[in-house]
Amino acid sequence: MLWEELSWPKHEKTVAAGATVVMPFAAIEQHGPHNPVVVDTCLSTSVCQKAVDGMENVLLTPTMWAGLSPHHMEFPGTLTLSLETYLAVIQDLVRSVARHGYKKVLLVNGHGGNVASLQAAALSLKHELGITIWMVTYFRLGNEIAEKIRHGEIGSMGHSGEFETSMMLHLRPDLVDMEAAEKQVWKRAHPLMIQDMHRGGLLNAPADFTRDTKPLGVSGDPSVATAENGEKFYEATAERLRDIIQSLASL
Amino acid sequence: MLWEELSWPKHEKTVAAGATVVMPFAAIEQHGPHNPVVVDTCLSTSVCQKAVDGMENVLLTPTMWAGLSPHHMEFPGTLTLSLETYLAVIQDLVRSVARHGYKKVLLVNGHGGNVASLQAAALSLKHELGITIWMVTYFRLGNEIAEKIRHGEIGSMGHSGEFETSMMLHLRPDLVDMEAAEKQVWKRAHPLMIQDMHRGGLLNAPADFTRDTKPLGVSGDPSVATAENGEKFYEATAERLRDIIQSLASL
Amino acid sequence: MLWEELSWPKHEKTVAAGATVVMPFAAIEQHGPHNPVVVDTCLSTSVCQKAVDGMENVLLTPTMWAGLSPHHMEFPGTLTLSLETYLAVIQDLVRSVARHGYKKVLLVNGHGGNVASLQAAALSLKHELGITIWMVTYFRLGNEIAEKIRHGEIGSMGHSGEFETSMMLHLRPDLVDMEAAEKQVWKRAHPLMIQDMHRGGLLNAPADFTRDTKPLGVSGDPSVATAENGEKFYEATAERLRDIIQSLASL
Amino acid sequence: MLWEELSWPKHEKTVAAGATVVMPFAAIEQHGPHNPVVVDTCLSTSVCQKAVDGMENVLLTPTMWAGLSPHHMEFPGTLTLSLETYLAVIQDLVRSVARHGYKKVLLVNGHGGNVASLQAAALSLKHELGITIWMVTYFRLGNEIAEKIRHGEIGSMGHSGEFETSMMLHLRPDLVDMEAAEKQVWKRAHPLMIQDMHRGGLLNAPADFTRDTKPLGVSGDPSVATAENGEKFYEATAERLRDIIQSLASL
Amino acid sequence: MLWEELSWPKHEKTVAAGATVVMPFAAIEQHGPHNPVVVDTCLSTSVCQKAVDGMENVLLTPTMWAGLSPHHMEFPGTLTLSLETYLAVIQDLVRSVARHGYKKVLLVNGHGGNVASLQAAALSLKHELGITIWMVTYFRLGNEIAEKIRHGEIGSMGHSGEFETSMMLHLRPDLVDMEAAEKQVWKRAHPLMIQDMHRGGLLNAPADFTRDTKPLGVSGDPSVATAENGEKFYEATAERLRDIIQSLASL
Amino acid sequence: MLWEELSWPKHEKTVAAGATVVMPFAAIEQHGPHNPVVVDTCLSTSVCQKAVDGMENVLLTPTMWAGLSPHHMEFPGTLTLSLETYLAVIQDLVRSVARHGYKKVLLVNGHGGNVASLQAAALSLKHELGITIWMVTYFRLGNEIAEKIRHGEIGSMGHSGEFETSMMLHLRPDLVDMEAAEKQVWKRAHPLMIQDMHRGGLLNAPADFTRDTKPLGVSGDPSVATAENGEKFYEATAERLRDIIQSLASL
Repeated sequence: MLWEELSWPKHEKTVAAGATVVMPFAAIEQHGPHNPVVVDTCLSTSVCQKAVDGMENVLLTPTMWAGLSPHHMEFPGTLTLSLETYLAVIQDLVRSVARHGYKKVLLVNGHGGNVASLQAAALSLKHELGITIWMVTYFRLGNEIAEKIRHGEIGSMGHSGEFETSMMLHLRPDLVDMEAAEKQVWKRAHPLMIQDMHRGGLLNAPADFTRDTKPLGVSGDPSVATAENGEKFYEATAERLRDIIQSLASL
Repeated sequence: MLWEELSWPKHEKTVAAGATVVMPFAAIEQHGPHNPVVVDTCLSTSVCQKAVDGMENVLLTPTMWAGLSPHHMEFPGTLTLSLETYLAVIQDLVRSVARHGYKKVLLVNGHGGNVASLQAAALSLKHELGITIWMVTYFRLGNEIAEKIRHGEIGSMGHSGEFETSMMLHLRPDLVDMEAAEKQVWKRAHPLMIQDMHRGGLLNAPADFTRDTKPLGVSGDPSVATAENGEKFYEATAERLRDIIQSLASL
Repeated sequence: MLWEELSWPKHEKTVAAGATVVMPFAAIEQHGPHNPVVVDTCLSTSVCQKAVDGMENVLLTPTMWAGLSPHHMEFPGTLTLSLETYLAVIQDLVRSVARHGYKKVLLVNGHGGNVASLQAAALSLKHELGITIWMVTYFRLGNEIAEKIRHGEIGSMGHSGEFETSMMLHLRPDLVDMEAAEKQVWKRAHPLMIQDMHRGGLLNAPADFTRDTKPLGVSGDPSVATAENGEKFYEATAERLRDIIQSLASL
Repeated sequence: MLWEELSWPKHEKTVAAGATVVMPFAAIEQHGPHNPVVVDTCLSTSVCQKAVDGMENVLLTPTMWAGLSPHHMEFPGTLTLSLETYLAVIQDLVRSVARHGYKKVLLVNGHGGNVASLQAAALSLKHELGITIWMVTYFRLGNEIAEKIRHGEIGSMGHSGEFETSMMLHLRPDLVDMEAAEKQVWKRAHPLMIQDMHRGGLLNAPADFTRDTKPLGVSGDPSVATAENGEKFYEATAERLRDIIQSLASL
Repeated sequence: MLWEELSWPKHEKTVAAGATVVMPFAAIEQHGPHNPVVVDTCLSTSVCQKAVDGMENVLLTPTMWAGLSPHHMEFPGTLTLSLETYLAVIQDLVRSVARHGYKKVLLVNGHGGNVASLQAAALSLKHELGITIWMVTYFRLGNEIAEKIRHGEIGSMGHSGEFETSMMLHLRPDLVDMEAAEKQVWKRAHPLMIQDMHRGGLLNAPADFTRDTKPLGVSGDPSVATAENGEKFYEATAERLRDIIQSLASL
Repeated sequence: MLWEELSWPKHEKTVAAGATVVMPFAAIEQHGPHNPVVVDTCLSTSVCQKAVDGMENVLLTPTMWAGLSPHHMEFPGTLTLSLETYLAVIQDLVRSVARHGYKKVLLVNGHGGNVASLQAAALSLKHELGITIWMVTYFRLGNEIAEKIRHGEIGSMGHSGEFETSMMLHLRPDLVDMEAAEKQVWKRAHPLMIQDMHRGGLLNAPADFTRDTKPLGVSGDPSVATAENGEKFYEATAERLRDIIQSLASL
């Protein structure tokens, strides 16, 4: 069910029924010359919709498309909140949900820059509100399927790379310009740093997207993306997300 | 053009072309038992899309659906930011737009509770950023058409009343339950207070939506709403909005 | 009664008597070469004092002379708070009043730049504190008398124009230099924008007072101002304000 | 000269002349049953006016009457800002003054609860703005005259005690009720704590004004206050304040 | 070198030499009945000191012992900042370092609750300051050595469990009470949640330390801790940390 | 007892026993070419440790070494929080202490720039938390001993002058370079300004440490400092501090 389509008396009933609330958080930010700025919002919304499709007693809120992207602001089209504002937005929205009596919340993230803020807010909110609140970044659930079917090597699945571009080719091919999709795989400064969307990360270095360091605003290899793989990424991540929602709902 | 569908190189071109940016702000909040909580977001988005349809050199951003609705929080389904957070959100988003070089911004509001915040932020932003920034609340542009074709008397066009319900009947009839639509016209404490969406207001009293004072969460008369009038409201407000956008674009 | 002149035991009695509290908010900001920076504070204080004169069970607080005037900062003598600070000031003061047990508050505004902040704060405060709080901008109550006796045409009654200058000539003629009073009526960018203190405003554009756009810092026609009309403006607005206070007090 | 009475072209001249700006900060807070809540604002404004009287090239701003009085909120009539708001107000006002080009600022305080905030803000502002900014609490300048002519012993000169009540008897006898003035001298918990307005204070304990600990809201002995001494306190503090202003102006 | 032991002329030289700055962040929070509240501060400080020992051109700042521990506040002795304060502290300290001209900063974290805040702040700071800033949580560097020599099974290495208790037995045995060390391994709600300090975590659930859910305030198995293993954990993590510092220093 | 060395069950006992909590606040900031940046932290920590040594039912927390030093930022090695952050840190830490049930708190300050913030926060906290909270700046307790044994004249005991350098020579002679210690006594702009750490101060002027005004970053005369006097300063201030703690503990 979509949160937005219910009237307040219907919400009163879903609260009474102990419904689980799924809240997508994404971004509007540059995704290279081959993808539109809506990629994160489009993909996380689509995966969430697929995951909750047909589930009883689960509500999906609208996607908060304004996220934390100061590191992409050298590329036009990016919209960003400040760190302080973003934390306040996350907290105010979850407080609204909890005030009506909902007790189980899953934050589904679709943008790397949001990860830390959502985790930090979730920690604070759990203790302030006494609710159960989990957080997952949808694309990290693609690690197993990616391992099996990826065309690119390690490093191909960064920002606007093979993974995201494949899914866009499946979901919104009209918005992708594969002629502009170039391989942009970058060497990391230390082996413990994240190597790929699904690999590594003991050592954290903030994402680095300047005109100097990433002229196209891309990290990864979008040129090997295919709609066929995109569909598989989409279905596999939605399936795992659905499993997480079911675990939360059954607590 | 939709902001979200452009890649960053395309944004670079629209900046260079001096494009005008239209930014809708709305809310997810209770609209009585006969309407879903998405009314404000649905209507302001639709009117904006219609207004910019086919215009050259005008960009429409996604609708910021999280607004200022503390006064509706007694009714479940309402999501609200705090006043401080909302002001920060408006300012951060317009700062993002201005940072890329866009110089003309129109804030289109679709929710009464947002009016003051958008005006206050616009005043600050104009002087901080040196851009041209205007603000209009779309439903107030419906005053002339309403005068001509309204079925209800003064007072029928409040929150989730004749105006909004008519437009929902035109745009999303599947989400409206006219069986639950009851006349709820309330007497004001002073003749200088706002009497209707389109009448009065020298004396300002904050909207009052508690379970005690407005048991259904409605102010106005949704029972006289018709899809036919909804279409006319929709087209007339979009037309006037289009005129405003053209004025701004031609500066 | 003046709030400031009572001891705490007397306040204890006025709380018990259910007194109404009138709180003036104004500004210290440039008003052209012919008027001192105190205009807004002087006029709103005087009108409030006249309105409450002799009323039982009504308290008038000191005027908060620090307001929101970032748009006048190019002209020396203007003092301004930031938007965030101003909202906090309004809220802290009303919270103080409510904490002592007062339940009815009227915010009387005397500066255009404060309108949105006072409305936004009032909305938040009503729901936080559960009090009755109204807001009115005193000079907008001058619309009917202005219609009757104004000397200038539409556009004459803007910032430091006919209306304010007339009242200053009545109340503090020693501070007005009519030799420096020049007609400064400006064309608006769109017919739905405010045309005058008392006319229009469906489309909101932030006030624009830079050295470039308004070399004298004036909008309107102070040259047609007279002390005689000033007295009438003063008495008519005070009379309407008194009526509003009585309505609030009698709730 | 009064800041508020100048037009902007006159301010432009005083900036060019290197004028010194004197800014009074006070409070509206309970002062026992014998004094009105305006004491701090009345006294600091009066002393400042006397001090600057006839001085060339010195501007006196309006008194910021809203201060920091959370510790008096159990007594009605007290208005307080929060600590965060008060610091923001001080900073915003001084920033406004500095932005116009004034380089010498004296903050004159009239309320014990404001001391720390004004010092803290002054430290920050000096380094942010590069101006010369000094701060003095006017009643502490009364230490020498008090030593000579006081009627009460150590401890008589606390909140609404001999010093303030004497000055009110001189300046606004119509607002003082000496029948309600009772001796209220309290023992301190440690000899290094402040013993009196003008004595001690190596060890800081926040002022303690609850209904339990100070039933009348008074610390000191107002019963020995006289208008005659009040006049001497007033003249002596104004004289020392004048000397400080001259030192600052002559830098 | 210790930052704190240098005078400002010596700092001037280390800035000129392009020194790398290592900044430890920890917490003072409950660590069960067998460990003191200083565990996180003690361990992260010790590991950092060992790692930088003898390195040229590397500065170690004091450990910021106040961290983010709202989730441990049911247990006395825990000190916590709020989320907003903690983010401000991290940012202010790194801004201070950068303002003096240092260009390479490593944030070394020693507390799970700080991870998200440090990552979020690092992202903001990199783009605000243009410096190279990395972040690592020291105990996650113990994953390889733990794999080899741990006595407990998966789940033994949570909060105040085998890993931390072993290191405390090596570094501060006088502060550990092994009689009070009980096995407290808890089942997770979902297999993708973190299972152990060094295992899992695709699905994020905020740490849950209430008196109800964790009566001892422990997660893991401290009973199998030994000083011998503690020494190995200590040396292995310090060694890997040293390697990271060297990579950063050699950029 | 050291707060950090207790486990939570031990804290539970000290809360029940009504223990007094001593919290040192200091700074890491430049102290001229002859002293390390740790002076304030070193001295206030040492004096506190000496003062509480052997006292029953008194807890000493770690020293908050990050303080308010914007006025020393022209000299490298200084770390500072912003005013807003510092006030939040003080408040969050004292709130943590109070939440566990401790009722008596002594803030011991070791840095001039912190005085106002600690006083301001203490005032707010007392009324928010209902605890007894005192504040003292340790070096001001050295006034009597300094009077007796000082080598320098008035003015010798400013920032990194005779007093602090003497104590460093006693406690950490390895970190002091007496060859770089030069007399730097500065004339004040007004006789009511502070003349020395222990003299004057009715008129407050923010500390002024720029490269222009204080080329060495020193105010006072470190060249007359001796370890012998340092020991006496140390013991005398610790003794007076101990007396204050005993007074608080015996309330």
